[in-house]
Parts: sequence; structure tokens; C-alpha cells
Amino acid sequence: MGLEIERKFLLDLSLLDFKKEKVLKIQQLYLLNEADRSIRIRIQNKNAFITIKTNKTPLIRNEYEYEIPLNEAEELFGDFQDKPSILKRRYLIQYKNHLWEVDVFEGDNAGLVIAEIELQDVDEDFEKPAWLLEEVTNDRKYLNANLVKLPFKDW
Amino acid sequence: MGLEIERKFLLDLSLLDFKKEKVLKIQQLYLLNEADRSIRIRIQNKNAFITIKTNKTPLIRNEYEYEIPLNEAEELFGDFQDKPSILKRRYLIQYKNHLWEVDVFEGDNAGLVIAEIELQDVDEDFEKPAWLLEEVTNDRKYLNANLVKLPFKDW
Repeated sequence: MGLEIERKFLLDLSLLDFKKEKVLKIQQLYLLNEADRSIRIRIQNKNAFITIKTNKTPLIRNEYEYEIPLNEAEELFGDFQDKPSILKRRYLIQYKNHLWEVDVFEGDNAGLVIAEIELQDVDEDFEKPAWLLEEVTNDRKYLNANLVKLPFKDW
Repeated sequence: MGLEIERKFLLDLSLLDFKKEKVLKIQQLYLLNEADRSIRIRIQNKNAFITIKTNKTPLIRNEYEYEIPLNEAEELFGDFQDKPSILKRRYLIQYKNHLWEVDVFEGDNAGLVIAEIELQDVDEDFEKPAWLLEEVTNDRKYLNANLVKLPFKDW
């Protein structure tokens, strides 16, 4: 189990030349999606994972992640095709000492863009890139597990 | 993904000298438990697994199983302690060419004993030990995922 400490921000895509960066195509299927716990299958390019998150707060979460074979993940997407899913492209952007993940959502969440930074502890300092806008860490509607229930198009 | 083909039987414990056989102490916690799909964490002696089963029929099921660290399984039991669980001892008994699993349930299912045999295909022959009683493969109430909803003590 890893303790996941993650802060989320809106951003100004026009200030970010992200096309040059590494991109991951991500599909996430939510097998279980409760208010404070989720189990999801993620296919990320050619890798696949099962991930269980149990929230302490939106900022701090227990995360259990196990890599699984891609073909089994694809079969699970079939077996649970009635369950909700998220589609997004993730750009990995190094800025100073930290790696930012910029998620560009698709499907029912198209138009939404979020930048995430993972920290070692809640007080860790980091430098803010010029393209960063307001922080939304504590706004639960931005949690992926909530975006499948109330997608951006319905806000 | 493995296709799991499993037949279940009641048995006469008095005819079985099972104390000499290998025993596993099993705890299963059901994170998701739908009519035809389940996700469970199993701790089996010092090993732990996350298992997803999607039923085709009670006899034939898709089974996806991944070993996970024991300490993470124990933490998941804590994070999901409100979810239902099964406790049982499993005796592994070789008889002719097949390995039988005899599950002796505890807790709310105490008194229930089931023998299971895993087959390679639905028509595979096997020799029946003298202690075997009626087959219950197609009676869904004997599925572990159903025993946590309606335990043996309430039958």
C-alpha cells in the first residue's frame, strides 16, 4: 500500500506546449465506485493495472496498485462493460524538481483539463509553473471516481 | 484469465480422515458482490490474492487472480472491514487422479462442509470417493459469494 498525496490544479493549456511531451492514452473502468473507495482497471498504452483507492481525504489516499496482463485487463473491460469509464490523455511534464501529470479528458468529460502533482508529504514545497491556475484538490467533483458519476458535460 | 470449471458436492465428514491432510486457513473479504460478479481479497495462510470472478454459469466462471503482498491484504481487510467475509479451513485431499478441496466453514456458516473438484473441461471424468454425497454445483446458495449474503445459519 502506498499513501498517495496528490494536489490537483486547473491550468491554462494555451500557455503549455505539451505536444512535445510524453503522452499516455488512459482508459479507466470503475468496478466499484463508492463515496470514499474505488476499484478500477486502468489500461495505459500497453500496460494494465488494478488499483484500489480508499480515501482518507481528497488530498491523502491509500492506493494499492498491481500490474496485470494487458489481455486480462481487456477481458475485464468486456466482463464489466456496463460499468462507467473514463478516457483521457495524460501528458507527463517535468518542471523544476517535480513531474506534473496533465490530464486531458475525452468523452463525457471532454473540455476538462487537470494538472496533478504527487508529493512525498502534505507540506512539501514545489515551484508553480506559469500555466497553473486555481487549486481544486479539495473539490471532490474533480476526483476521477466522481467524474464517472457526474461528468463535466453535466456541470 | 483462467476459465474455472468447478463441481461442488456435499460430503460425509465422518468417512473422511482429513486431519492428516494439508490444511489452509482461509479468510475471504468481498469488496464487490453482485449477482454474477465478485471481487474478493483472500488471505490463505501466509499468502494473499485479489480475485475477480465473473460467472458464466455456476459451473463455469472466468477467474482472474493476482497475488498481492500479505501486509497489503491485511490493510485492505481494515479499509473494507464493513464488507462481508467468509472464514473457512480448506483440506487438500488427493484421491486417484484429482485433488479435492474440502472446505469446513466457520462463523455464520459453521456446520457447512463442501467438497470441490476443479476440472479441465465440463465433461472430464473423475472417480468419486466414498465420502462424497449429493452434487450441489448448480445450487447457487452454495457459492461463497452467496454464503456471505445468506449464511448457512439462516437456511
